[in-house]
Amino acid sequence: MTGEFDFIRNLRLWHKLGHVGDDCAVLPIGGENDLLATADLLVEDVDFRLDWSVPEFIGHKALAVSLSDIAAMGGTPRWALTSIAVPERLWKTDFLERFYSWFNSLAGQHGVELVGGDVSRTEDKFSVDSIVLGEAPKGKAVLRSGAKPGDRIFITGYIGGAAAGLRLLDSGHRYDDSQPAPLRHLLLRQLQPLPQVTTGKLLREYGLAAAMIDLSDGLSSDLIHVAHASGVGARIDSDLLPIDPAISAVFDSENEALDMALDGGEDFELLFTTRPDSVAAALDLGFHPIGEITDKTGIVELEREGKTTILEPSGFRHF
Amino acid sequence: MTGEFDFIRNLRLWHKLGHVGDDCAVLPIGGENDLLATADLLVEDVDFRLDWSVPEFIGHKALAVSLSDIAAMGGTPRWALTSIAVPERLWKTDFLERFYSWFNSLAGQHGVELVGGDVSRTEDKFSVDSIVLGEAPKGKAVLRSGAKPGDRIFITGYIGGAAAGLRLLDSGHRYDDSQPAPLRHLLLRQLQPLPQVTTGKLLREYGLAAAMIDLSDGLSSDLIHVAHASGVGARIDSDLLPIDPAISAVFDSENEALDMALDGGEDFELLFTTRPDSVAAALDLGFHPIGEITDKTGIVELEREGKTTILEPSGFRHF
Repeated sequence: MTGEFDFIRNLRLWHKLGHVGDDCAVLPIGGENDLLATADLLVEDVDFRLDWSVPEFIGHKALAVSLSDIAAMGGTPRWALTSIAVPERLWKTDFLERFYSWFNSLAGQHGVELVGGDVSRTEDKFSVDSIVLGEAPKGKAVLRSGAKPGDRIFITGYIGGAAAGLRLLDSGHRYDDSQPAPLRHLLLRQLQPLPQVTTGKLLREYGLAAAMIDLSDGLSSDLIHVAHASGVGARIDSDLLPIDPAISAVFDSENEALDMALDGGEDFELLFTTRPDSVAAALDLGFHPIGEITDKTGIVELEREGKTTILEPSGFRHF
Repeated sequence: MTGEFDFIRNLRLWHKLGHVGDDCAVLPIGGENDLLATADLLVEDVDFRLDWSVPEFIGHKALAVSLSDIAAMGGTPRWALTSIAVPERLWKTDFLERFYSWFNSLAGQHGVELVGGDVSRTEDKFSVDSIVLGEAPKGKAVLRSGAKPGDRIFITGYIGGAAAGLRLLDSGHRYDDSQPAPLRHLLLRQLQPLPQVTTGKLLREYGLAAAMIDLSDGLSSDLIHVAHASGVGARIDSDLLPIDPAISAVFDSENEALDMALDGGEDFELLFTTRPDSVAAALDLGFHPIGEITDKTGIVELEREGKTTILEPSGFRHF
């Protein structure tokens, strides 16, 4: 894995990434808004497996992951483009029709219009690059860099479910309406994540989020992204983590559930920090407090059973 | 090939493509400009071969094809995003460093900033999705749909060279500084195309282009795109075609050269139509007149040696 990290670090250098380092690029355009732009590339057998899913779920998720990036800025998604590489074995099937049926359905729910993209043949694996453009009032997009020591850290919903769903898929389970509810729930957390677009926008509009990120890589990694971007540290309390209750209905080990919550990723809930004078409002609205921002730059601490350990990022890392 | 055409036609239906059908999506944003957005997906062994090229050329071309789409609208490119799928065999090489060195160099020449994207592992082929965002004054982007009967048809430069270069690569030639000039020229037309960004903008600003498209698929295909989008026909004269003079220095057959010019694609020159009162200006500026727009909807005619034939599109078709 070291190769991949080095590779991504180098890539950032080659990119000379001025606007990058957040979930979206924030681009100055005329008028009252900034433009938000994000791209997420999903590759068969790396980011999804055709035999683990159905085309509808893959179409949904391709758009959901990019909508989640817009949500993490408190933005409004407007337009989507998709670039797909399609192997010949899929042309003559209904794969793409089914893929786009749920892609378009999710787009419609969020008022997003699919306006273009590209298609290429490929000799091997299907892939889709999902690009979403959105808007936020000029200078108001919520960045990863807005956290200050003393901020409280909140999560918008339960975590660990998508990782549990992935483990179930890996061990041979497939989604099926006849399965017990907790199993179905966990599989759907992985296969059909729901981007928190409305919540992200609400948090920006109400001024509750000082810094924000979506939980795509995993809590441990994503919190460290915020810490680095803001030049702060963080301390979270394992007892406060909103671990998806369905996990304990399916998996026995509490440690395993905690690992999924800390490192699993792909829950696409939002993590945000709140200034002390907005904590009451965030609690009122039912968000989950999990800790606070500290002045120990770049250090994320986990309190568990009276002990404090340094949390190392170990979720999957995207660019 | 029929499968691919059906597939692309279906894809347009699934997309419910409101803003599509031009080189870029034209998106209404606040302020004085429209936003232009385009994505071009290049896949190893479909759109390029690593053993035919060097990483620098591939990086250049990945951006050039998208800049050409902005040029075809008369737009100003502003930002780029790249989503790349990278096989492990390339991580530990200098492939990406070399790829991005020329990508960034071309970006810098056009004032374009690389602001984001995504990276994924892939098990097999390298691919890059090149997304460019640009701007044009509100309502002023030049569309494919602006042609009217009586317009003259112009091309900005020589055509057929990129197709000739492709044929040379296919027959074992590789780019090398020691080669004869015509050979080098033709290989570079294929490997390092130059997007006509400044020319496209000039044509819009001077009101010379009523309709415009870039020659990516091939003259025959691209002219039919304009004819369909505008609800018109076209008649071109083979004697007027600005066939790349280097072709005759390398290939013997005149028919072959004409085929390359009509169907070859990837020259990334611009084709535009001009109202009668602007023809003198277009001629003055050195653009090549090749024919005129007719009222025979959807029909493109080729005049050659006193005979008129219906031209069928046979270039490579992108989405």
